[in-house]
Amino acid sequence: MSSQVGSRVFNFSAGPAALPTPVLEQAQKDLLCLPGAGASILEISHRSPAFIDILTAAKQDLTDLLGIPENYKVLFVQGGSRLQFSMVPMNLLRGQEKPADYVVTGSWSSKALTEAGREGPTHVAYSSKASNFDRLPEANELQLSTDAAYTYFTSNETIQGVQFDADPDWSEVPLVCDASSDFLHRPIDVSRYGLIYACAQKNAGPAGVTVVIIREDLLERSQQPSQENLAGYLNYSEHVQNNSLYNTPPTFAIYVLGLVAKWIRNDVGGLDQMLVRNREKASLLYDIIDGSDGFYEGHAQPSCRSLMNVTFRLPTDELSASFLEQAKAEGLHSLAGHRSVGGVRASIYNAMSQEGVAKLAGFMRAFHDAQKHESQCSESTDCES
Amino acid sequence: MSSQVGSRVFNFSAGPAALPTPVLEQAQKDLLCLPGAGASILEISHRSPAFIDILTAAKQDLTDLLGIPENYKVLFVQGGSRLQFSMVPMNLLRGQEKPADYVVTGSWSSKALTEAGREGPTHVAYSSKASNFDRLPEANELQLSTDAAYTYFTSNETIQGVQFDADPDWSEVPLVCDASSDFLHRPIDVSRYGLIYACAQKNAGPAGVTVVIIREDLLERSQQPSQENLAGYLNYSEHVQNNSLYNTPPTFAIYVLGLVAKWIRNDVGGLDQMLVRNREKASLLYDIIDGSDGFYEGHAQPSCRSLMNVTFRLPTDELSASFLEQAKAEGLHSLAGHRSVGGVRASIYNAMSQEGVAKLAGFMRAFHDAQKHESQCSESTDCES
Repeated sequence: MSSQVGSRVFNFSAGPAALPTPVLEQAQKDLLCLPGAGASILEISHRSPAFIDILTAAKQDLTDLLGIPENYKVLFVQGGSRLQFSMVPMNLLRGQEKPADYVVTGSWSSKALTEAGREGPTHVAYSSKASNFDRLPEANELQLSTDAAYTYFTSNETIQGVQFDADPDWSEVPLVCDASSDFLHRPIDVSRYGLIYACAQKNAGPAGVTVVIIREDLLERSQQPSQENLAGYLNYSEHVQNNSLYNTPPTFAIYVLGLVAKWIRNDVGGLDQMLVRNREKASLLYDIIDGSDGFYEGHAQPSCRSLMNVTFRLPTDELSASFLEQAKAEGLHSLAGHRSVGGVRASIYNAMSQEGVAKLAGFMRAFHDAQKHESQCSESTDCES
Repeated sequence: MSSQVGSRVFNFSAGPAALPTPVLEQAQKDLLCLPGAGASILEISHRSPAFIDILTAAKQDLTDLLGIPENYKVLFVQGGSRLQFSMVPMNLLRGQEKPADYVVTGSWSSKALTEAGREGPTHVAYSSKASNFDRLPEANELQLSTDAAYTYFTSNETIQGVQFDADPDWSEVPLVCDASSDFLHRPIDVSRYGLIYACAQKNAGPAGVTVVIIREDLLERSQQPSQENLAGYLNYSEHVQNNSLYNTPPTFAIYVLGLVAKWIRNDVGGLDQMLVRNREKASLLYDIIDGSDGFYEGHAQPSCRSLMNVTFRLPTDELSASFLEQAKAEGLHSLAGHRSVGGVRASIYNAMSQEGVAKLAGFMRAFHDAQKHESQCSESTDCES
């Protein structure tokens, strides 16, 4: 692996992010002509039998992987998480005459809260903003409304690198989860949620498609007379009634998402095995951080650490810059932390290989060792240069 | 060409539709590793230099092809035309205290009118619904408001196959055009429009990206205090201020759209040549229709015929079914007309080759000849079977 033209590097981008190589190879092989279709997946009608098969299989694979109960609907929509920030309150808060509770644990839940405020009353049930979103709430820190329209949270915050490691069990009101950056990284109990959504470009596919899993009874809220002015595209019920074919869906993105789901089922062996892999990968990096005597300083509190985005800083900005530059020369790309946190962010979603993470861990160790050596040299005159 | 597994057929799908083969070949070649990026176009960050180059080039190629003046912005958004049906009135009609004029010439402008009605007052300046949308307005048939928020029309109606062949010059109010199904099929005078939008999956690329070209002064409407509750994703100004990176854009779809724009520039020779090709292709089919003594009956009035979607019926539904079945056996696919019009629809967008249209024209002639022969035989006993 090197960064030269034409060869693949280890890509730690926070999203769009690495995809499984077998998925890319399959998509490449069939790009001119999808077997049986006589045309590219990019060219066939969304109402053609070939695409309906792809759509149906993608839904079924997600349903099987996550054990989605029968009283839930699976949708594929456009607009990313940003549009869901608005579609959730448009469909579930408008006309409810009660607030929506928001658990604010990072940049994305903060933005979701802002958009919800445009649609109805909101209540901040928790915020870790004061500590730059380095932690998650303990159960006794949540200030939930007694009768909220829903409780909203973000299961993984990519910028800060904090992640809920279990399905919350906070209250009886519908739980809404932005799972954009850790969707399909572990098994979840869908029945605990009212709505789960995830844009695909972190863990589940390319940019351009967002999965929405919604409990059927919540669809009633957007079917009320008071909702008659809700735009067609923004109404979950329209997408449900049309099996995600309310308009032309992002056919290629759904196709690739379906290939990723099949990769998790068949190559990885399901979400239990996916979680084993993800824990092993994250441990490689957190062990280096914890064993570095503070040279690498993690941003997230240890109990809230993300398996998806490992965020840490070096002692100085100069060292961080040097780290990133040398890492890139080793074929370890897109490791710069977000400007609000600084330092380094290694995004190690499902498709990042153990090999890539091990190489990064080795680099972190070697970089630290070199710094120790240099620092010793500066204290000693007979040290070799 | 045949319909066997693995070989490409002639694909007359109304959308998603055929793409230029060189575009597909380029995308296929680079799918595992975009030169210089070290990763697939599906995997790289939308803020990476490699993607910014792609985005910038796509905008520049559109600007050059269409001669887009400097006081216009080019955006790439998600949600297709359906979301534009709502975003147009959300941004340009809300809070304006005057109606939007809609010129209703087919299924798509009808749906756009419905969505606009959810956002503010609308006025139907023309409708050809009474004749099942087989025609377009003469200048003296338009009943425009004296001071509309904008005048909206659909340059090509895919289902009925009617198309405006010139840029309208109706009034001084901003002209809004849904050009989804004929974008880039001919040169246009952008300065006559306030806003032009086009989902890509007919003429410009794959499903999942929509181009919006908006005159800068119209952005002021969504920056008014009365618009503070307009959702972030639905506000054109947000996309302009963030150079289409307000959120993660559909990176792959923009990449393919950019390849299509380059194909029109370099392989076709620009929009003048594109129009020459499109006229030649459409003539091949309309000449067969006009020379068939009524066997093939066009849906659109001759003066309003579309160069993109050629719609016609055969004398009976049985003959139409037979036509479609035999065409498919010849490798001529996706020719069924929309259920609201019936018969046959040949969508011959930019990327449909002259070869494909010529083959369809030959098939239409042969099918008609066979019917004449059969009909003569049934009147004569000594005809060979």
